Formats: sequence, structure tokens, C-alpha cells
Amino acid sequence: MFEKTLEKIKPIDKTWLEKAEAHQLKLTKPPQSLGRLEEIANRICAIQESLSPNINTKRIVICAGSHGVCDEGVSPYPAEVTAQMVANFLNGGAAINALARVSNIELDVVDVGVKGAVPNIEIKSENCRFISSKVAEGTRNFVREAAMTEAEMMKAIEIGISLAMQAKQSGVALIGLGEMGIGNTTSASAITSALTNLPPEKTVGRGTGADDAMLAHKIEIVKRTLEFHDLDAEKPLEVLQKIGGLEIACLVGVCFGAASERIAVVSDGFIATAAVALAITICPPLKDYVFASHLSVEIGHSKLLEYIEQKPFFDLEMRLGEGTGAALAMNIFTAAVAAFNEMATFEQASVSNRR
Amino acid sequence: MFEKTLEKIKPIDKTWLEKAEAHQLKLTKPPQSLGRLEEIANRICAIQESLSPNINTKRIVICAGSHGVCDEGVSPYPAEVTAQMVANFLNGGAAINALARVSNIELDVVDVGVKGAVPNIEIKSENCRFISSKVAEGTRNFVREAAMTEAEMMKAIEIGISLAMQAKQSGVALIGLGEMGIGNTTSASAITSALTNLPPEKTVGRGTGADDAMLAHKIEIVKRTLEFHDLDAEKPLEVLQKIGGLEIACLVGVCFGAASERIAVVSDGFIATAAVALAITICPPLKDYVFASHLSVEIGHSKLLEYIEQKPFFDLEMRLGEGTGAALAMNIFTAAVAAFNEMATFEQASVSNRR
Repeated sequence: MFEKTLEKIKPIDKTWLEKAEAHQLKLTKPPQSLGRLEEIANRICAIQESLSPNINTKRIVICAGSHGVCDEGVSPYPAEVTAQMVANFLNGGAAINALARVSNIELDVVDVGVKGAVPNIEIKSENCRFISSKVAEGTRNFVREAAMTEAEMMKAIEIGISLAMQAKQSGVALIGLGEMGIGNTTSASAITSALTNLPPEKTVGRGTGADDAMLAHKIEIVKRTLEFHDLDAEKPLEVLQKIGGLEIACLVGVCFGAASERIAVVSDGFIATAAVALAITICPPLKDYVFASHLSVEIGHSKLLEYIEQKPFFDLEMRLGEGTGAALAMNIFTAAVAAFNEMATFEQASVSNRR
Repeated sequence: MFEKTLEKIKPIDKTWLEKAEAHQLKLTKPPQSLGRLEEIANRICAIQESLSPNINTKRIVICAGSHGVCDEGVSPYPAEVTAQMVANFLNGGAAINALARVSNIELDVVDVGVKGAVPNIEIKSENCRFISSKVAEGTRNFVREAAMTEAEMMKAIEIGISLAMQAKQSGVALIGLGEMGIGNTTSASAITSALTNLPPEKTVGRGTGADDAMLAHKIEIVKRTLEFHDLDAEKPLEVLQKIGGLEIACLVGVCFGAASERIAVVSDGFIATAAVALAITICPPLKDYVFASHLSVEIGHSKLLEYIEQKPFFDLEMRLGEGTGAALAMNIFTAAVAAFNEMATFEQASVSNRR
């Protein structure tokens, strides 16, 4: 499934970008005056190979997993919060629920490796689906051993691929990435250092709110992790297996599945972008299908965005994950595609063009 | 009406910001992790003096006016485009129509000084209302005379105030500013120079797409305008009358009316922000009611945002006006308020808080 999916991912055909741009120039606005909205609409046209782009159905896949590295005291929140927040998503009480509701976005909440049972599942939230696909009871502590076995990683990736396939079946044309996992900024920082060769001082941030002492400790943990594993940026699957998370592996799979089905992907913050960076390193043509969303407060995020050569659409000083940045960005996509599809041309509107 | 409205504008009560922040801290997210969304929600709470903020009904007021300075050849588009675009708004074919539709925003399209009749008014667009309140057949050419008489300016301001009052009657809780007027970046640049004392080289941009020669000419026109009128930043009403536009005066009035009714205002690009800057200079407490939206490509816009001490929410390289930046920003406001109102607290969701 993994190999077959990767084979299906082809770069977009650039002539569709030109066709879309030719249409933009006919619309009643000065050329390029909608700025990056035009870039978005044109790329969606190329992904869908259509000049009537359609992103009516949007879904965010929130993958949740626990992290063994929490044993090292890298987060101010207890590890149980991962399972508790999954319940909160299903009950409709998290930030992503509010943001998804107002933008008419469906949510897939995926337990791909949450330690312990998810408490109080009631699924009170509309447009929200629970996928219980626990690969393991969280990852192992990657300071002293590989986070996952290769089999666990491949299973998590394939769950992600299936979720994208299911989204395709449901007519989803825009997939957002979301995640939950106490401890996962530590994993994302280690991945960022492994891919970019930047020292942990430049990739480790405060996550959910580490104080100065915890931040210094977190940097030390990432240093020890990198020394222990001796990773190679050219072996991204090994990076993922040794220092990633099950939710990150699942998001890598979502990227693969989406691109193979020509579904555009909207990234989120630091952790989601770590998944995107791994996915692009594994399969470079995937790049054409992925859009950044926001720039988060986490210092490693800008490094990862540079690494994947993407410019975020906004910086609202957010650092929550869950897909909240993806949800906000989706509004921009909706607007971009609506303008492309609905605006009158100069001729239709009898508006005089440039002299 | 003008004086009475200004008297009603009071600074927000900062204790409401504290009450809102206390609520934010109970919600299931790390403190401040929603970044500027929290800043927005808290300020809306203070404006509405409520911990159940409501911005369900949103409206953008698009004021249109023609500019005598077009005679100087400051735009690559003919002056008739102003009237033609008003018709395009009413027929639903402009970018703002698409953006407003997808975000459920009402539109007021106001002819406050369009030269000539607006052609082919059909009002095909839902949620769109035409207000024909032509104060004059556009402004006079401000290179050699005052753009408006004082009476014309006051009339345009009072139309804006009434539009905000009507919005209040209709339950509107968030007003966006929009504008249309070929030539009005020249006016906004002159206003920016007059308020900030920056030379035209730092405030004049390419507008709808001036080439290098036209840009140099536009800078020269603004220089001559500033020399001719000898303006004083401490007399903002005089600045508006002499070098403003009827649509800018009307937007100044919308700001006054909105703040007097405790309605939050979302600015747009360069021209709307010129109106906001004048309005705040005339009535400083107004500042608490106005939010920036995006940063436009026009070079003077960042200067104006600094002048009013506001930080934009995003930079999508847009430069269209019409309220398109306000429409996109309104999605962020909707999300911010939804998260504030709908998120569960740590206690309600049985999620463990920080250790």
C-alpha cells in the first residue's frame, strides 16, 4: 500500500497554473491584486486539473498519540492530557471544534497511539468522527531507544493513507492536518534538527508553556536524543521511526494518501509541518499538493517552513496545534476559490480594463 | 449629529479585558495559545461589555466616490471604472461579493459621490443593498483646489454615521470598511503624508498598477498637492476636506457611528485605513473600537498602521480594496469569538491543567 501510494504521486502539470492565471487576468480586478489568494486558487486548479476548482467539502484529520519522552519531564502538562483532549474533541469542547464548526469543516479524530483508554467518549460534536486505530500504547522514550518499531511506523502511515482514501470517497477536496500529543514538540524539534542539521538551541521551543528551566532541559533531551540515534537526513523514514510519534507517522500517511488522490493538503503548526517535511523528503513531488497555513510561535516552525520552501499565510502568534491553524487557513482557501469561480470578467461586467 | 455622535464615543472599560482574560485562562488550551485570537475576543468583550460576545451579524460598508485628481493621470484605469464597479458590486460580480458570500457578510454599497449615473443596477447579489446618497459628482482636483467644501464633507460624514446607526438597528455587531474610487490611493497617500509628515516618496505606491513613469508622476502630484494646501496634522478635518475623498469622509462617519453604538470596526487596506487614521486623529477614544485587518502591498499602508499603532493580522500581498481584507479578517473574528464562547473549561472537560 505504501509503495503503491507513493508511485501514484506525480508533480502537478504547470500548464494548469498558466491556464488558471489566464482566467485570473480576465476577472474584474487589477492583475495580481488578490495576491496570494490567486496563488492558492491557481494551485488548486492545477491539483484538480480543472478551471472550476471545488473545495466545498473540507476535513481536518486530527491524529493523536502519546510520547514516551514525556517521562523526561518535557511538558508542563501531564501525559494523560493526550487522552483527555481526545475526549474533549469528541465532546466538542476544544478550540478546533469551535473553529471547524464556524468554517463548516469535518473532523476525523484518530487515536493512532494514545496511551490508555480515551475516557468519556460521547461524540457530542457534529461533523466529528472517531477513528480508533491504536497501533501501540504511545511511543517508547526516544532518548534511549527507537520511538517505534518499523512495523508500528508503517501501520501508522497506512492508517493515514486509508484516512485520505476515505476522505476522497466522501468528496473531501481539502484535507487539513491536526494533532494532539503531549510531548510532541520535543519530537518535532528533534526531527527538525535531524532534517536541517540545526542545533537543538534553534529548534526547541516552549511547546505548551515550558519555563526557562524546562526549556533548557528540553534542549538537553533533544541533544542526547540526536547523539544516541546518529540520524541521517537522507533517511527520513528512519528519522520518523526513531524519534517521531505515531500521530506524526499517521499524518505523513495522510499527506501521501491525499497527494495520491490529488487532494490538496493544508498544514498546521510545528508538529504537522514536521510530518509534512518528512513526507516531502520521502516523496519530493508531494510538495505541489501541500500548503503551509500559519507561522506558529514555536521557534523550529520557521526553520521547517524554510526547509520545505513554503511561506505561511499568517502569523497570529498561535501555538495550539489541533489543526487550529489549518482551520483558519481554510477560510482563505474558500475565499480564494470563490473569487476565482464567481467573479465576473471585465467583458461580462462591462467594466473598462486598463488603458 | 456630528458633535453628538463624537460625544458618545468613550474609551472601553479595561476591566472587561481582565474579565475576558480570566475566562480565557479556564478554557482547555495552554494560556495564550490562541494568540491574537484571544486579543480579538477579549477586546470584543470589552466593546460589548459582555462575556458572551456576539458577532453573528456582520456587514461591510463599501463607500464609492470619484476623484477629480484622476484628471492628472494617476491611474492606469479610466475614471468611469468607479461607477462601473459599483454596478459590478450590485450585480454580484466583484471579488468582495464572492468573499462576503462565503463568510455570510452583508454588503452596503454606497454611492456617496460617484461621477455620473451608476449603469445597469440590477442588484442581483443577495445580502447586498444599494444606498444612493450622492453628495457631489466626485471631488474636485485637489492639486489646485479643495477636494470638497466643508458642507460636502460634513454631509458625507453624516451619511456614514447614519449607515452605522442603520447597521445597529439591524443587529450588526461587526462593521467592515470597504471602498471604491479610481484615484483614491493618491488621496490616501497625500493624507498619509499630511498626518505622518513623511515625504510622498514613502507614502505613494502603485495603486491599481502604475508603471514606473506613472509612479514618479503620482509622487510629483502628491508633492504639489501638499505644497498647495499647507496642511496641519492637528487639523484632520481640514486634511480630509482639502485632499480626501467623499468615500473616505463617509468611512470616517461609519467609524464614528459604529464606535458611538459600541460596534467593532474592521478596517481594510490603505484607503480604509486612511479614513480610520483621520477618524482616530479627530476622536482618539475611537481607537479602542477599530481593528486593523491585513497589510496591503501599498507602501503607505504600513506607515498608517504604525501611526494608529495597530498590527495587521495577515499579509497576503493583496491590494484590491472593496473591503476584501476586512472580509477575510472577519473569519478570524468569527473563529476568535466562537472559541471564546464554545470551548469547554478544564473543569467541564475533566482535562488536567498544568502541573
